[in-house]
Amino acid sequence: MEPKSGISRKDFLKLSATAGVGIALGASGLGAIMEVAKPAKTPSSAPGESGGDIIPLYGTHQPGIITPQQTYMYLASFNVTTKNKSDLITMLKDWTKFCDLSVAGGTMKLSDNALVPPTDTGETLDLPASKLTVTFGFGPSFFMNEGSDRFGIARMAPLYLKDIPRMPRDQNIDKEISGGDICVQVCANDQQVAFHAVRNLIRLSTGHASLKWMQEGFASGTPGKTPRNLFGFKDGTANKLHDSSAGYDQVVWAGDNELGWMQGGSYLAYRKIQMKLESWDRTSLADQEATFGRSKLSGAAFGSHGEFDSFDLSKLPEKSHVSLAKQTKQQIHRRAYSYTDKVDPRTGNIDAGLLFISYQRNPDEQFLPMLKLMQNNDALNSYVAHVGSAMFACPAGLKQGRYIGQNILEA
Amino acid sequence: MEPKSGISRKDFLKLSATAGVGIALGASGLGAIMEVAKPAKTPSSAPGESGGDIIPLYGTHQPGIITPQQTYMYLASFNVTTKNKSDLITMLKDWTKFCDLSVAGGTMKLSDNALVPPTDTGETLDLPASKLTVTFGFGPSFFMNEGSDRFGIARMAPLYLKDIPRMPRDQNIDKEISGGDICVQVCANDQQVAFHAVRNLIRLSTGHASLKWMQEGFASGTPGKTPRNLFGFKDGTANKLHDSSAGYDQVVWAGDNELGWMQGGSYLAYRKIQMKLESWDRTSLADQEATFGRSKLSGAAFGSHGEFDSFDLSKLPEKSHVSLAKQTKQQIHRRAYSYTDKVDPRTGNIDAGLLFISYQRNPDEQFLPMLKLMQNNDALNSYVAHVGSAMFACPAGLKQGRYIGQNILEA
Repeated sequence: MEPKSGISRKDFLKLSATAGVGIALGASGLGAIMEVAKPAKTPSSAPGESGGDIIPLYGTHQPGIITPQQTYMYLASFNVTTKNKSDLITMLKDWTKFCDLSVAGGTMKLSDNALVPPTDTGETLDLPASKLTVTFGFGPSFFMNEGSDRFGIARMAPLYLKDIPRMPRDQNIDKEISGGDICVQVCANDQQVAFHAVRNLIRLSTGHASLKWMQEGFASGTPGKTPRNLFGFKDGTANKLHDSSAGYDQVVWAGDNELGWMQGGSYLAYRKIQMKLESWDRTSLADQEATFGRSKLSGAAFGSHGEFDSFDLSKLPEKSHVSLAKQTKQQIHRRAYSYTDKVDPRTGNIDAGLLFISYQRNPDEQFLPMLKLMQNNDALNSYVAHVGSAMFACPAGLKQGRYIGQNILEA
Repeated sequence: MEPKSGISRKDFLKLSATAGVGIALGASGLGAIMEVAKPAKTPSSAPGESGGDIIPLYGTHQPGIITPQQTYMYLASFNVTTKNKSDLITMLKDWTKFCDLSVAGGTMKLSDNALVPPTDTGETLDLPASKLTVTFGFGPSFFMNEGSDRFGIARMAPLYLKDIPRMPRDQNIDKEISGGDICVQVCANDQQVAFHAVRNLIRLSTGHASLKWMQEGFASGTPGKTPRNLFGFKDGTANKLHDSSAGYDQVVWAGDNELGWMQGGSYLAYRKIQMKLESWDRTSLADQEATFGRSKLSGAAFGSHGEFDSFDLSKLPEKSHVSLAKQTKQQIHRRAYSYTDKVDPRTGNIDAGLLFISYQRNPDEQFLPMLKLMQNNDALNSYVAHVGSAMFACPAGLKQGRYIGQNILEA
């Protein structure tokens, strides 16, 4: 591969020069320091992973929203610590440049000047692009922080952005792993590639923002099949209903009632949902299926035969998960991952569950009523606890040469 | 696939009948309940993953020791809670039967009797075997627990098994994530397949043992290349030195000075090593390379050209990691994974690092002197903290029809 168009060696030098602590370049010998390295060759034994596994960073919409789900995800939330708008802009520019390079599977040469820190942390030197996507979102506190319009952008807040209101069963929500000013969703088919990206974004945030929380997740599916959650049920079947350009416009992409930067963007709703695997595993198959309203094996709703068949609401248990979701007559685009954290020292059980992520154009209409209905009635509530919560507005797709958030900060 | 030889439907019923809480079968309708399901077909778009990706459970040695490293690992440590030797045996039999089925990529049919809990948790129903391996080890406290010979097996303890003695820099070792009676190392090229196995082993331990700690890790490498750790350096290069049957006999497999059950087994040494990524990333390339004694890009030791070239100790910085490892004139078989846990709330940094795992035939000679030398002198010490520690004796390979640990418990 040739060095990517749009990223010249000079750009790298600028990137390095602005990257602060991580890359403190001296003034000498710069010309020879950095070059775009070639992406690793496709290993002959893994034809699924190739240099062609590149998801473009630029386009009408951000990648990582309707992109078919990759196997791994890191979701990281940052609080902006600088009060200086130009520092914030510097960080967002650095992030954009890093992503431009990183999603293409490139890495910078480590350095020919050994006296400075390497320009790349190096753990992906031998790895292909792995369908890496980085998706950015901005939280309510990005626009208005504890009553202060820090960056003069309160007027740029999108229509429906707010923290998810307290729900009936929210007694376990942990504020330490909820919310945040800026969210970065990094997905890839290789965990090391995903971590490399999130780690370097953290590195480039030094002095400008602090990492508030980070959560990793996985979703293993055979290509073309809906992945299963840790209760063993298929998760994301209903996405098929809007799997068309028109469908995505209806369900996912914010419309022209929004400010320009948000048109073609989407709202990310996040709930970290702990699943009580031990009680679930002691529940009969009949009760498990009645809880979801679906066959465990096939994923078909009660009364229908195939996973994607239409179904008759009256055939489903009234409080089943699928029935309630259907009753709202609203669609969302699910993009959930499973997580397995540590052993919970209080119970000896594994803290594991679902990182519920959905994208929608209007959370007030599509997501919040569904969440409220579920919290009040869902038969699944006996087996789950919501422990984290957040909402972010993800801007429209990026144009080459511009940086993420530019249409908010320089409007 | 035909039902696996050695596992009859009757065996499954026995398994179910002994599995306690998880599978409380009624007395009726048993005949129709369980069948071995076929492994998922190889998806045409992922030829690397196939039904042929089965690592046998049975053989001279346990799988997961010299097996080429899979991408994901869960390491779980259990304490035996039952005082009843026959309950312990029941659990080990259930585990063995589960593994026999599970490593072959099979799953049980969920159930035709919907009134009982499903016999399989179901999250791998659509997934292939993914090179799953389960490796068992026994800790010092399995043989002698707080001065008590609970199961009458103190005389069966292997020659070199003991907790890793306190080292000079062990002030950060957390006992909650160290040691344990029984260790299970589960590895696979798919995280959900790996988790499915560890989760079901936990399920089958109910009433007999409790999960003490669990740690997940990943290692992303292009096939045939040494994976890189989170400092961006290659990890496991020296394994090449004993990559032959004779080499493994010299380095890994316990010899005939051990009791029969341990001959052909190996000692697993585990250290959870937190890596200070933030300080590392601020270190110059020259200092990073001097710390390891290797080129970051190529992995070659100082003074040599290729990763696997022999090298002259005098060319390496005295306290470099590779130099110290070489000075002990001992070899170990490394099988390390990276981990990324949460954000450390004290520092805002990510708790990430290396799950150092090595296998050796004699830890007194091979591992402990190396660890002590490293702790006293290794230049890497400025960038790492050891936080977890354990040693387990992994028995020789299993014969079909026998259960793991049988040669210890029924000797």
